[in-house]
Amino acid sequence: MSSISKTAGIVIIGNEVLSGKTQDTNSYFLCTELRALGVEVCRVSVIPDEIELIGKEVVSFSRAFDLVFTTGGVGPTHDDVTMAGIAHGFGVKVIRHPELERRLRQRHGANINEARLRMAEVPEGAELLGEGSLYSSVVKMRNVYIFPGIPKILHERFAAVKESFREAPFHLRVVYVKEGEGTLASILNELLARYPKLLLGSYPVIDNPEYKVKVTLESKDAEYCRQAFSTLLSALPKGAIHRIEES
Amino acid sequence: MSSISKTAGIVIIGNEVLSGKTQDTNSYFLCTELRALGVEVCRVSVIPDEIELIGKEVVSFSRAFDLVFTTGGVGPTHDDVTMAGIAHGFGVKVIRHPELERRLRQRHGANINEARLRMAEVPEGAELLGEGSLYSSVVKMRNVYIFPGIPKILHERFAAVKESFREAPFHLRVVYVKEGEGTLASILNELLARYPKLLLGSYPVIDNPEYKVKVTLESKDAEYCRQAFSTLLSALPKGAIHRIEES
Repeated sequence: MSSISKTAGIVIIGNEVLSGKTQDTNSYFLCTELRALGVEVCRVSVIPDEIELIGKEVVSFSRAFDLVFTTGGVGPTHDDVTMAGIAHGFGVKVIRHPELERRLRQRHGANINEARLRMAEVPEGAELLGEGSLYSSVVKMRNVYIFPGIPKILHERFAAVKESFREAPFHLRVVYVKEGEGTLASILNELLARYPKLLLGSYPVIDNPEYKVKVTLESKDAEYCRQAFSTLLSALPKGAIHRIEES
Repeated sequence: MSSISKTAGIVIIGNEVLSGKTQDTNSYFLCTELRALGVEVCRVSVIPDEIELIGKEVVSFSRAFDLVFTTGGVGPTHDDVTMAGIAHGFGVKVIRHPELERRLRQRHGANINEARLRMAEVPEGAELLGEGSLYSSVVKMRNVYIFPGIPKILHERFAAVKESFREAPFHLRVVYVKEGEGTLASILNELLARYPKLLLGSYPVIDNPEYKVKVTLESKDAEYCRQAFSTLLSALPKGAIHRIEES
C-alpha cells in the first residue's frame, strides 16, 4: 500500500477573521473532513479581501498542492473579490457563468439586479460541479475548489463533492499518559528510531488531574501503526497509561 | 492622528491543527487581542512541525510585518522544532539561554535531563522578556515573539507583554440590516465612494429571522467613522435597521 497521500492547502479569505470579528471555523471543518478522507492538509493561510493577495496565494497553493480549497469573499458586495482575485492570479477574465446566471434570474425574477448577478461571476475556464440548486453547486477552477464563507453553505457544498477526494485512510491510535514530556521524550525518540515513517504527536495538557500528555500515532499502514503502538505501550513506565483509543 | 497601524502576522505551528486533531484557538485569541490594541493583523499561516518550513515562513513574515507571533512547537519532544526552525531561518545557532537553564535546573533539581533542558533552547541572539516564573517569560527573536501552543500559557505570557504593542485604537460601528446583500450592495458602494478610507465589512447570515446582514464600519479616525455611519443609516431603506452597535 502507498503511504503517499493527496495533499491539500486551504485559503481562508476574509478581513473579518484577521480583525477578530469572526472566529474561523471553516479551516477546522475542512481539516477534519479531509483527514477523514485520507487527504493530507499541508497548510492553511488566512488572507485579506484583496485581489492581488488572493491571486498570488491561490496560484502558489495551486502549484504546491494537489487540491486547494478557498472559503469566503464570494458574494455581491464590494468586499467579495475572491473570483476576481483567482481570475487575476491565473491570468484569465471574470465571466458570467451562463448556468449560474440562468438560475439567478429564475430565482430573483423581476428583482434581479447587477449586484445579484455578481453571484454568477467565475474565473474564465471554471467548472460548475454538483447539480440542481444554487446552494449545492461548487465552482472549481483547475484544482481550486471555491466555497463561500458561510459555514452552513460550505458544509452542504463540501458534502456534495467530498467523495471525489477519498484516499486510503489514516489509521490513528492514541494513548493518554500520566507522565510528562520530560520523561516521555526519550521513549518517543526511540520509538521514532524504530518506526521512522510513523506520524507521532505529543501534546501536553496542563491542569488535568488524569493525564499529562496525549500521544498520537498515525500511519496509512494499519499494521505498521499497530506494531508501533504495541511497542510504545510496552516501553511506557508501569502504571503510566491512563487510557488508550484505537480507531 | 495617524491612520497607519503597526502590522502583524501570526504563524501557527502544528501538525495537530492541520490534521484536524486540535481546533486552533490561538489565532483567534491573538487576532482579537491585537485588534483591541490597535494592531492590524495581515495574515495567519498554519504550517507543519518542519524546520525548513518554519524558518522560511517566520523569516518571510518577519520581513513583511512589524510584529510576528508564533505559537506551538515549543517543548522537549521530537516534534518541538520551532526554536530550531527560527534559528535556521535567521541563519543562527540554537543555544541554551543561561537564565532559562538556571530556572529549569532550579525547578527540576535532581530530575533535570536532556529533554527538560531543551526548554532552555533559543535562537542565538534571542531576548527574554518578562520576569520571574518560567510561565511568564516570552522569547523574542528580532521582531518575532515565540509562544507555546497551550492556550492558557499563551494567554498568560501575552498579557505580560501586550501593552508594548498598543497603538491608536480602531473605532467600530455596526448595523444589523433586515435587507439582503443584493439590495445593500449599491448603498455600500456609494458609501465607499464618499468615504474611501473606511474599513467596511458586509457579512450575511442565513436562517436568522431578525436580520440578514451585519455591516461593520471601522476607522482609526473616530469622527470619520461617526460621519460615515450617520451617512449609511440615512441611506438605508426605511425600516431596514434591526439594531446598531457603537463602540
